[in-house]
This record gives sequence, C-alpha cells and structure tokens, in this order.
Amino acid sequence: MTERKTHLADLSEALAALEKSYEAPLAINNLESAALPNRRAVIEAYSHIPPLIYLGFYAEHPVGPDNLAASLAAHAEPAYEGFVHQISRAVAYRQHVHHDACFAQNFAHEATLSLFRALPELRHMLNEDCLCTFESDLAARSVEEVVFSYPTLRAITAHRIAHILYRANVPMIPRILSEYAHSMTGIDIHPGATIGRRFFIDHGTGVVIGETTEIGDDVKIFQGVTLGALSTRRPSATDSPRTKRHPTIEDRVTIYAGATILGGDTVIGADSVIGGNVWLVSSVPPKTKVFGRAREEAPES
Amino acid sequence: MTERKTHLADLSEALAALEKSYEAPLAINNLESAALPNRRAVIEAYSHIPPLIYLGFYAEHPVGPDNLAASLAAHAEPAYEGFVHQISRAVAYRQHVHHDACFAQNFAHEATLSLFRALPELRHMLNEDCLCTFESDLAARSVEEVVFSYPTLRAITAHRIAHILYRANVPMIPRILSEYAHSMTGIDIHPGATIGRRFFIDHGTGVVIGETTEIGDDVKIFQGVTLGALSTRRPSATDSPRTKRHPTIEDRVTIYAGATILGGDTVIGADSVIGGNVWLVSSVPPKTKVFGRAREEAPES
Amino acid sequence: MTERKTHLADLSEALAALEKSYEAPLAINNLESAALPNRRAVIEAYSHIPPLIYLGFYAEHPVGPDNLAASLAAHAEPAYEGFVHQISRAVAYRQHVHHDACFAQNFAHEATLSLFRALPELRHMLNEDCLCTFESDLAARSVEEVVFSYPTLRAITAHRIAHILYRANVPMIPRILSEYAHSMTGIDIHPGATIGRRFFIDHGTGVVIGETTEIGDDVKIFQGVTLGALSTRRPSATDSPRTKRHPTIEDRVTIYAGATILGGDTVIGADSVIGGNVWLVSSVPPKTKVFGRAREEAPES
Repeated sequence: MTERKTHLADLSEALAALEKSYEAPLAINNLESAALPNRRAVIEAYSHIPPLIYLGFYAEHPVGPDNLAASLAAHAEPAYEGFVHQISRAVAYRQHVHHDACFAQNFAHEATLSLFRALPELRHMLNEDCLCTFESDLAARSVEEVVFSYPTLRAITAHRIAHILYRANVPMIPRILSEYAHSMTGIDIHPGATIGRRFFIDHGTGVVIGETTEIGDDVKIFQGVTLGALSTRRPSATDSPRTKRHPTIEDRVTIYAGATILGGDTVIGADSVIGGNVWLVSSVPPKTKVFGRAREEAPES
Repeated sequence: MTERKTHLADLSEALAALEKSYEAPLAINNLESAALPNRRAVIEAYSHIPPLIYLGFYAEHPVGPDNLAASLAAHAEPAYEGFVHQISRAVAYRQHVHHDACFAQNFAHEATLSLFRALPELRHMLNEDCLCTFESDLAARSVEEVVFSYPTLRAITAHRIAHILYRANVPMIPRILSEYAHSMTGIDIHPGATIGRRFFIDHGTGVVIGETTEIGDDVKIFQGVTLGALSTRRPSATDSPRTKRHPTIEDRVTIYAGATILGGDTVIGADSVIGGNVWLVSSVPPKTKVFGRAREEAPES
Repeated sequence: MTERKTHLADLSEALAALEKSYEAPLAINNLESAALPNRRAVIEAYSHIPPLIYLGFYAEHPVGPDNLAASLAAHAEPAYEGFVHQISRAVAYRQHVHHDACFAQNFAHEATLSLFRALPELRHMLNEDCLCTFESDLAARSVEEVVFSYPTLRAITAHRIAHILYRANVPMIPRILSEYAHSMTGIDIHPGATIGRRFFIDHGTGVVIGETTEIGDDVKIFQGVTLGALSTRRPSATDSPRTKRHPTIEDRVTIYAGATILGGDTVIGADSVIGGNVWLVSSVPPKTKVFGRAREEAPES
C-alpha cells in the first residue's frame, strides 16, 4: 500500500513535468489550435469512399435499382460530412483565420464537392485499372480477387482521391490519405504525382513515387521501384517547392523490380522497358530496353 | 444558410451522377450479386484462427484442462461460422448458381472442416517454425517474443491457412488472407506457394514468393528476396494459369537480402547459399555458394 | 438438416483433436502461464503515448492552461495502468515467479515510471526529429503534415519509447512495440538500437536497423537501407547475445536508398555519404563519399 502510494506520487510528479514541457516553445505543441484535423477522423471519412466506388464489394445485402440510391447515401453522408469537417479544420489552421469559420467552411464544401463530382469518371478510370491488373497478373483468378485484395488497387484508389484534394489545394489531408495507403500497402505515392490510365503496380512493397512525377497511360511498375529526386536540398525562398524534381514516364513503359529512376529532367520514352535494379539518372528515347547486368536474361516479375 | 442549401443541392446532383455511373457496364459494378464475400468479415473470421493455434498467447485468463475445450470453442465457433458463410458466398458467386445455395453451403462446410482438421498437424509445423526462428535469430530473446512479435510467424501462419483453402479450391478467400498478411508484414506470399517445414524469413519487408514456388525444409530467406516469374504475359486460353512459373528452392538453402531468383525451371540445389542482391535466372547445383560482388565478404543479415 | 448435423459432428471431432494437440510438448502451448502479456493490450496502452507527446494533434477540443493537466491525465492513466499491467505479466512470466506478484508489480511500476519521467526530454528530442524531417524533405508542406503523416516520425516515436523499456530490461514488450511500428511503417528498428538526435528516415519502407547499431546525431537514411550483422549464428552459451554485431554510424552521415552496411566493427566516419545500393562491410574514415556504380551521378531520394 505504501509502495502503491509512492508510485502514485511519483506518477503525479512525472505528469507535472510533462505538463510543464508544454510551456517550452516546441513546434509540436500546437495547443491553442486544436482546430487541427484529426487523423483518425480523416481515415474514417475516407473509409466510406471505396464503398461508393465498388458498392457491390461492400454491400452486406443485395443492391438493385430500388435501393441503390439509399445504399450510396448511407456512405455518401458520413464521407461528405467527415471530409467537410476535417478540410475546414485544415484550412482554418493554415490560414490562421480561426474566426473566419465561414471561409474555411465554404472552401471545405467546394473541395469535397469537387471530389464527389469526380467520382463517376473516377469509377471508369479505376475500372480500367482493375481490368488492366487482371490482364497483367497471371496469378489473378478474377476481377473480383483484384478488387478485394490487390494492394495496387488499394493504393491507386487512395492516390486518385488524394490527388483530387491535392489539386484543390487542400492542406494536410491528401498526405494523411497517401500515408495511410502507404502504411497498408508499402506503396508510397505522393499525392502530387500525376498518373495516367490503366496503371498497374505488381506486389508493390517499397515502391516510391515522388511529388512531381508524371506517368503516362498503360505504365506497369514492379515492387521496389523508386521514381525519385536527385537532390533533396530545400531550395531558397525564391524557388518554388513544386519545381519538377521527379522523372517523367511516358506511355506503355514497364519498369521491373528494384529499378531507380531519378531527376526532374529524366524522361523515359514511350514503350521502353527498364530492367530490374537498373539505376537511371538521364533520359532514354522511346522503345529503349535498359538492362543493367550482363547475366540478366529476362525481366523479373 | 443559402450557401448550405446550395451545397446540399450540389451534393444531390453529384450523387445522382454517381448513381447513374452504376448503369454503365463496368466490371466493378457487381450489384446484382451482393453475394460476394465481405473482406472485413473474412479477416474477422481469420482473427479467431491464431488463438486456436497459440491459445496461451491470447487468453486473458488462465487456461487449464477444465476450461481448455470451452476456451477453444469460444474462438472455434465464430471462426467456423465466419468461414462457412464467406466461403459459401465466394463459391456461389463463382458458380453463378446463387439459387443452388445448397451446393455452396456444403462446399463451404467441407472446406472449412478441412481447415479445422488440419489444425493439430499445423500446430506442430508452426511450433517448428517458431523454434527455428528463435534459433536462427540472435536478436530473439525468447520463443514467446517470436510468437508475439515476429512478422515471419504472422506471415507463415496466415500462409499455411491460406494454402489449405487454396488447395481446397476456395475462390477469393485465400488471396484476401494472404494480402491481409502482406499488409501487416510486408511479406507477400501467394497462397499457392508450397513451403516446407522450419521456414524462416528474417525482417521480411519486401519479400515476394510467387504462386508456383516450391520451397523445401529448413530454408531461410531475408528481407527483399523475390522468388518470381520470368515473364508475366497471360498465356493463351489453352495454357493453364498454374504452369510452373516460379523457382524451386531445395532443403537447407539460405537466400540473403535483396536476392532475386526467377523462372519456373530454376532450381536452387540443396544446401546452397545465395548472397545478398544476387540475380539468378538459372539453376545451381547443390552446395553452391553464389555471391554477386567481389567486395562482398560475407552474407548479410 | 442431416447434413448440418453431420457437419456439426465433424466439427466436434476436429475440435477434440485440436484440444488433444495441446497435450503434446509444444513450445507454443503456454497454457498454465496465461500470465503472458497480451499483444493487443500492449498496443492499446501505447496508443495513449503519442497523445501525451503531441497533444494538440489528438485533442478533439481546444486545450489551454485550464484543461491541459486534465487532457494529459485522460491519456496518462490508461497508458500507465496498461503498461504496469502488461510489464508485470511479462516479468512474472520470465522470472517463473508467478507467486511473487509483488516483485513483478514493483518492477513494472518502476519501469513505467522511468518511461513517464523520460517524456519531457523525449518531447524535445522528437520536436527536433520533426523539425529536421521538415527541413530535409522538400515535399513536406508543414511541420503539422510531418507529425500527422510521416512514417519516420511514427517509427522514431515508437523506437524511442521501446528503447527506454529495453534499457529498463523489460522483456517482450519493447519488441511488441517495435514490430507494431514495423507493421505500420515498413521500418524495422530493433529496440536495442541507439539513435542520436535529429534522425530522419525518408520514405522508410524496407529499412532494417539491428539491435547493436549505434547512430550519431543528424544522420539521414533512405528507404531500403540495412544496418545489419555479418553472421547470424547464435553464439555459444559463453558469448553474450548483446555482442556488438551491427555497424556504428557517426554524426552527419547520409545513407541513400538500398545501401547495405554490415558488421559490428564497421564504422562509417562522420560527415560521410554512402550512395544508393552500396554494399559495405568495412569501415570508412570521416568525410568519405562511397558510390558503388560508375554511372551513378548523384544521390537518390
């Protein structure tokens, strides 16, 4: 009992010191705000987006013309409310205009609406991503298996959503979504990356695609591929942080596992094939095959 | 207020367009079905399998002869019901025989029973996997630490379960389980891969083991190892998708980090050692040591 | 109905065999104990630690001088109780002194207190980690984005906590925490590793940092870097398992993606730069630049 009391006294003391540490001028303090978005709430709002896109895969009961609208609304409402709330917090925080809740609210409604308006076209794109994955991966047994379990589809779904919010200038939220997908799949795509139609990533663990990467249509990449920057120095205040630092991959390029392609001026020409573990820091013309090792006889999968 | 009304009207319009997008002939629509398995329910059913295998690690209260059966039943019931329900949905969907619920139900009971019947032998295998991991990894302090925290044991447990369902011809569910484990561990093992006893994967992130890989007993592999296929073209309709496309690894082989071994005809002979980052697309005889780089003095861990 | 009865009888039989398998002398049985820590409960206790460190990012309501103590206490209490409970189980189990609950309890209180006492200084360190990440990564838009979404900060927060418990000789729990972070981020840091101030890991997937690694201040590493051991044979009983087996990285070293540095005697001198995919098993003096490939023109990111 005495020991128990001592422990509690020690804990009180430790907590007092912890409380005091919030008086120091730390960037991580952020107490006054508390208008910051909440990571868990963002992910909760996002969790209703895949059901809007792939409704049949999430429905617990049959869905038909009679209850389609109601089934969509059951996900659309929490998704909409959640994104509006979290985006308005993020914007209010960035603008340091907590009192102008009206501006933040309107911005959040418009950004969320732009996301919802994009969904029908997004469903066509993701349907193509899905079919292309099924055709590209011999191990896939059905399109359904791809939707249920393939990390490429989870990653590209999250990326296409995050990219819409990124282009709408929403702060913080796009990166929370992309890092959530990274955590689930091992595929790290910055929300700023521009990715064309029918994109396929096999296996995916360790893939890194940087912010200013541009990827054409019908591109396939394998696990461990990096599309990165040559230098990571933060530029002077006069430079834009969105200077093109990452490569451009043209249509119908295939990049095998572990290849590293770096630099904002690097362009991989259309219909090229980049072999496993190749290291590239300069452009190659269309239809080039680059294999880094003599003994490499064929591309890997 | 007016703005609020406008936002709601805009949202209604966006939702109407989304609803309309379900009229297009997209592979991802799948509305009539709604007999599809539910990914979350599959993972929930699976979550009761590790407690059946490693009961002492999950029990919140002491377990002894008196309450062992009851403690097992508490997990066996939801696991059994969950798998039967999800497997019967998957089978009914594949067969396009939604009306013949009886066939799907029986198939699901038999497949789930085959899983439960395999558990006692599986416990012996996983016990060996666990002991072998403890002996192979100098950083392991206890067998308990291995069961609690090692990704290799999470991945191989899920794989051995998924493989039983794969061999029982269960559609979709095995891949949902293997991609769930991939998401948790970064280790991507296709449910079709055949893996012998006392298997050990160190660290594991980025490991890829393809569908037709055959692995003998006492094999050890490290992070970033790929056992893959040379070509990923989907074969013509007359080819079987289960043609052997991935390598065979014989007993007591060790493969260090980042090595890539490709091709269905590639056989790594017993007792061989493959060095870090080595790239192999042809067979090596037993007891071979393959190191790719002159300056590589010793295997990595 | 008859079939249903048969299935139930078959299930009963399978469960009886499963129950019987607990009679075999398997290392994974562990029934009597049931004093083992519970992985889920450990992670639940840990989930209250980041809010103590980054309170503003977790608070759902504004926090100020009036309610700071209460807001901290709301997380401190479940964190403290949870860690004390789980640590005392782990210690009691290791000591095989289940009856001496008092020793285990006191040990657990002291270890948990040492963690709480370390929090104020830890907040300063993590604040530096955070600022350094923001300055190092051109893609970061704000310090808030780093705290919310960067895997490096999730991994280093969990590591610094796990390392405190590791140094306090707490069994099992530190590794549960580090593997939890590994699962979330793809970054595998053994709790024994010693890591200096202002540490930054970019992207992170596939990073492995071994138990006896020593890392100085201002070190930056990229995805896929391994700081590992040369040999993984378990030493004879007279050897200590904590012999230095992993490298030492001095201040201000940068190690680019995919580099592998191995061995307990390997020292990377201060201000060195190790290029992408380089393989190193011996020391290099301060200010060395090691690039493995002729065509490599510049470091990757």
